Amino acid sequence: MTPIEDLAARLREFVAAREWEPFHTPKNLAMALAGETGELLAEFQWLTPEEAATVMADPAAGARVRAELGDVMTYLVRLADALGVDLVEAAHAKLDESERRYDPETYRGTARKAPPLP
Amino acid sequence: MTPIEDLAARLREFVAAREWEPFHTPKNLAMALAGETGELLAEFQWLTPEEAATVMADPAAGARVRAELGDVMTYLVRLADALGVDLVEAAHAKLDESERRYDPETYRGTARKAPPLP
Amino acid sequence: MTPIEDLAARLREFVAAREWEPFHTPKNLAMALAGETGELLAEFQWLTPEEAATVMADPAAGARVRAELGDVMTYLVRLADALGVDLVEAAHAKLDESERRYDPETYRGTARKAPPLP
Amino acid sequence: MTPIEDLAARLREFVAAREWEPFHTPKNLAMALAGETGELLAEFQWLTPEEAATVMADPAAGARVRAELGDVMTYLVRLADALGVDLVEAAHAKLDESERRYDPETYRGTARKAPPLP
Repeated sequence: MTPIEDLAARLREFVAAREWEPFHTPKNLAMALAGETGELLAEFQWLTPEEAATVMADPAAGARVRAELGDVMTYLVRLADALGVDLVEAAHAKLDESERRYDPETYRGTARKAPPLP
Repeated sequence: MTPIEDLAARLREFVAAREWEPFHTPKNLAMALAGETGELLAEFQWLTPEEAATVMADPAAGARVRAELGDVMTYLVRLADALGVDLVEAAHAKLDESERRYDPETYRGTARKAPPLP
Repeated sequence: MTPIEDLAARLREFVAAREWEPFHTPKNLAMALAGETGELLAEFQWLTPEEAATVMADPAAGARVRAELGDVMTYLVRLADALGVDLVEAAHAKLDESERRYDPETYRGTARKAPPLP
Repeated sequence: MTPIEDLAARLREFVAAREWEPFHTPKNLAMALAGETGELLAEFQWLTPEEAATVMADPAAGARVRAELGDVMTYLVRLADALGVDLVEAAHAKLDESERRYDPETYRGTARKAPPLP
């Protein structure tokens, strides 16, 4: 079992022990993921770029960021598990596509968006 | 290397080859994560609960969901890597806390929120 | 002054009195808007469709939803004001476009997405 | 009718003409709002603070930002209309509360969060 599969299994047991499966529908889990992403953003919204880059050095702020990253990861793993999607594989597949779309010569140093692959 | 560390390394090389590091600040990565989460939500927003539960069975819709999950995972791993946070560890730490906050007897079958731990 | 212009003016004074202008950059305001939208979603995420439809009838839940809608409106008005965009006008412009894209005959009763206008 | 009430009425007719009411449940509208907020964020995510502050001066980028603001406003007005909430009133109510929580003397020039009101 990979670390993510192990986490997914622990989450399944946690949810089952509390009979929360009816709440963990894909739509609800997607909403929860977006909610936690919002909370993560809120930890950064008033920080200057410099403060944001060093936020983990501040014990209180760093702990809050770590907690929110944990919450986002939790719901992402639960949602992917509910849908039967391998998150790491899906990310690699997008990277394969991005490597073809974003030729380093053409896109070096720019955030310009590339047209979709044919 | 765990699968996530391997993905993080591949992402670092992808970004470096295109000299995109200046764009990948923690604030920008948090915004990108929220943007992709929004795109993931959009795949579910008009589906009924039943359609959402079987979305992966539809080739076109399932492929779009898988792609958006890949994008969300990509930015979550990049952001955590930029901040030096272990995502799986952070999720387990939140679960440890949730197990203490959400006693199964009291919270069985309810979505009621528990008070924070002292 | 329309009600929105009046609200925007009150927000400008509130921010100026606390010397918060440096925090209210467009990027930060967009992040704050997304953060509050996440908090709004969180009020609905575990509700069944029926509970969601009647949430305003519950005094506590209804008050929280009203508060979050207030927060989302606040940041949307602030961001639009900072960028010099008329929100109502922008919404009407999108509706004009949607009326051309979504011919009622073709799109009656379906959530199918229409191709962009040429 | 205020401009918002007029927009809400136009939206109701647009939706009714296409028989889209079944899709416009509060949960779905909240998800759509979050989705559009994500698209708005995406317009800003790679911009430097300076580029973000002048984005409306760029014809293409400015048009995209205006369109996304229109989409966010659209769903916010629809959701509030579906729930019977007056957005401007709700925003003023939160401002009344924020004026009491954030005494200008204490919170001048700082983004520190104030404790909730008793």
